[in-house]
Amino acid sequence: MEKPSDSVGQVIVQYFTYAEAPNEMPLDRGAKKLGPITLAYETYGTLNKDKSNAIVVSHALTGSSHAAGYYSDDDIKGDKKNVGWWDLMIGPGKAIDTNKYFVLCANVIGGCYGSTGPESNNPLTGKPFGKDFPEVTISDMVRSQKYLLDYLGIEKLVTVIGGSMGGMQALDWTLQFPDIPKSAIVLAASASLSAQEIALDAVGRNAIKMDNEYKKGIYGKGAKIPGLAIARMIGHISYLSEQGMDKKFNRRLEEPSFAAKMSDFEKQFETEFAVEGYLAYQGKKFVDRFDANSYIAITKAMDLFDLGARYGDEKYTEDKSPEKAAEKALQKAFKRVKAEILLVSFSSDWLFSPEQAFDIVQALTINNKDVSYIEIPSIHGHDAFLLEKKTAFENVVLTQAIKNFISHIKV
Amino acid sequence: MEKPSDSVGQVIVQYFTYAEAPNEMPLDRGAKKLGPITLAYETYGTLNKDKSNAIVVSHALTGSSHAAGYYSDDDIKGDKKNVGWWDLMIGPGKAIDTNKYFVLCANVIGGCYGSTGPESNNPLTGKPFGKDFPEVTISDMVRSQKYLLDYLGIEKLVTVIGGSMGGMQALDWTLQFPDIPKSAIVLAASASLSAQEIALDAVGRNAIKMDNEYKKGIYGKGAKIPGLAIARMIGHISYLSEQGMDKKFNRRLEEPSFAAKMSDFEKQFETEFAVEGYLAYQGKKFVDRFDANSYIAITKAMDLFDLGARYGDEKYTEDKSPEKAAEKALQKAFKRVKAEILLVSFSSDWLFSPEQAFDIVQALTINNKDVSYIEIPSIHGHDAFLLEKKTAFENVVLTQAIKNFISHIKV
Repeated sequence: MEKPSDSVGQVIVQYFTYAEAPNEMPLDRGAKKLGPITLAYETYGTLNKDKSNAIVVSHALTGSSHAAGYYSDDDIKGDKKNVGWWDLMIGPGKAIDTNKYFVLCANVIGGCYGSTGPESNNPLTGKPFGKDFPEVTISDMVRSQKYLLDYLGIEKLVTVIGGSMGGMQALDWTLQFPDIPKSAIVLAASASLSAQEIALDAVGRNAIKMDNEYKKGIYGKGAKIPGLAIARMIGHISYLSEQGMDKKFNRRLEEPSFAAKMSDFEKQFETEFAVEGYLAYQGKKFVDRFDANSYIAITKAMDLFDLGARYGDEKYTEDKSPEKAAEKALQKAFKRVKAEILLVSFSSDWLFSPEQAFDIVQALTINNKDVSYIEIPSIHGHDAFLLEKKTAFENVVLTQAIKNFISHIKV
Repeated sequence: MEKPSDSVGQVIVQYFTYAEAPNEMPLDRGAKKLGPITLAYETYGTLNKDKSNAIVVSHALTGSSHAAGYYSDDDIKGDKKNVGWWDLMIGPGKAIDTNKYFVLCANVIGGCYGSTGPESNNPLTGKPFGKDFPEVTISDMVRSQKYLLDYLGIEKLVTVIGGSMGGMQALDWTLQFPDIPKSAIVLAASASLSAQEIALDAVGRNAIKMDNEYKKGIYGKGAKIPGLAIARMIGHISYLSEQGMDKKFNRRLEEPSFAAKMSDFEKQFETEFAVEGYLAYQGKKFVDRFDANSYIAITKAMDLFDLGARYGDEKYTEDKSPEKAAEKALQKAFKRVKAEILLVSFSSDWLFSPEQAFDIVQALTINNKDVSYIEIPSIHGHDAFLLEKKTAFENVVLTQAIKNFISHIKV
């Protein structure tokens, strides 16, 4: 077995602990502090002498620091392809070219893939935080990664890139640390969630919290919580488009062979229609790999994300509609942007719609900022930014767009 | 206190039991029979001598036979307006004019408002059916109402009218009993559910079934099941449009005064954002009034609804895509229609979209059937067909459309 020529190859998770006095980082909300914090991260490519070729890749809601490569030869044995979540885009000669750039991806705080999160020990009690993990925001996630850059001695980034919540982080980088990223690539994201998106997240969290297996947030590690599967099912519906779901499932009934392969966990859910079997399978896969309290913490961080409210200072006034005030606040927030920005949306993405991307384009344009915008036609909804097939139209267009955009940013 | 001049006034629920030998009605699926069955129904206006002025009004998923009027003077005391769910459209001089027509509305079988359903006693056990209530279909619901017409001696209907699941019933009437309705008015409905719609229903049912309080379907009457609230929340998101939700809630936080009024049940759910408080409130209201097994039974009936598959006989073949085969099947099904049909959709309804209504228009047109179609501009999504405010643009347009359409159907 040989390593594919465009793979970053075998990688390891590294850990960084920020333990500066007073041993904690400030938080936007609630607890106001958290520490000491640890970030799990991976790097691909080589940092140049000037430390000027770094790119930060930010992951989405349920992602991890494992953006590219594989952990052991066993992961790519035979037909297996257990590689990082964006292996398609990151590697030698790929859109994010590790021959040229030093690529860094860290698991967000609040996550469950090695960075400080609900499964970590609370230094005050010596037990996992669980449901008592303090509320974190997207800005907190970004700030924690800034400490990692400090530690590595990186003062400038060629770009920060991410989709969905990763795109939110990329946007926050340009506002919280305008002098660090020279550019940002924002895929399938928005400047804040709409009421509909908050509602979908809230119903998912409610489903988890109502579940007996959740045990009011004090469940054992590895607990299989059906409510978490329900939350994931709601998520999956929002990640696909109606047209895409019809193309994939139509009103087809589930194959009898599916039932034979079902786990006991999946058997708890409806599977008469193929789309139901798909949801049951996705729910099961998710429960096996994700922590319920992390899911609650991270979706809440997304709901709280509001660039206008955080970085603009326009207040709602009686003579302005909330919509108008939010628009003004966003314009004000984007005044401070120094990075060149590429925004990408997908036509059938109803979770983070082209309209929402366009609100950002408009707020940047009004401030005379350097912004490019592409809407890629797709029936794959929000999922279009992470399609697995290299030859998918969306990937072909996206690869070229990212390549071209990064290539003109000076290292 | 006086009865409003355009109200049908005080009404009562009537009961009809179909107990023809062998004392049961045939069902489309599963159990294949159910009986004896009882229908709870209400009537408004007077049946003429020829019995030729009857109109059937069909209710949606969570509706009842109480379409118009009120049960006691207390219901309209002072500011109170506890009237039927379509009181706005049914009454003397209204769109469905009870001075001219005899209007009939029956609770569907499977329901929990008086007709035979999961809360009814299973004659075999002497205990409520509960989760063992046999699977019923929209066609079964319609067939049960045909028995009621027989009992009343009504052979022809001026029209059958309904929205959402009510519209599905109206469509089924025109195919199962082509000689009975002279016309049908179908609002915000489709000829079958898309994969996305099935998925939303399935997640709701799963949330109920996973709930400990559901007790595998054998809960006591009046049990407050949070999973049913979760299902209702998912439903509500699908009944509104993203734009409508933003207009109504935006990213506004819930008022502190809301918390003070919250019931213990609502307190279980997230209410930081106003949209979350709205969902918690709607969930609570629903749990207070609806039966979980009924919700499962009726949403399943909707998922199974497929006019093409039931009344067409086009089989999927290898040289045709499932979409093409479904289209052909629907065309074949509509061959038998004799009624004149008015279809109405609402522009922002993403649950039962204008595109889905248009599929019906197309299948009818290809068969040279008499069909009219209106798409009403609205930001209120699926909910637009049941807005409470008389002066709402949607109601004004809808009232006129229904009035005009019915007026040219010969009694």
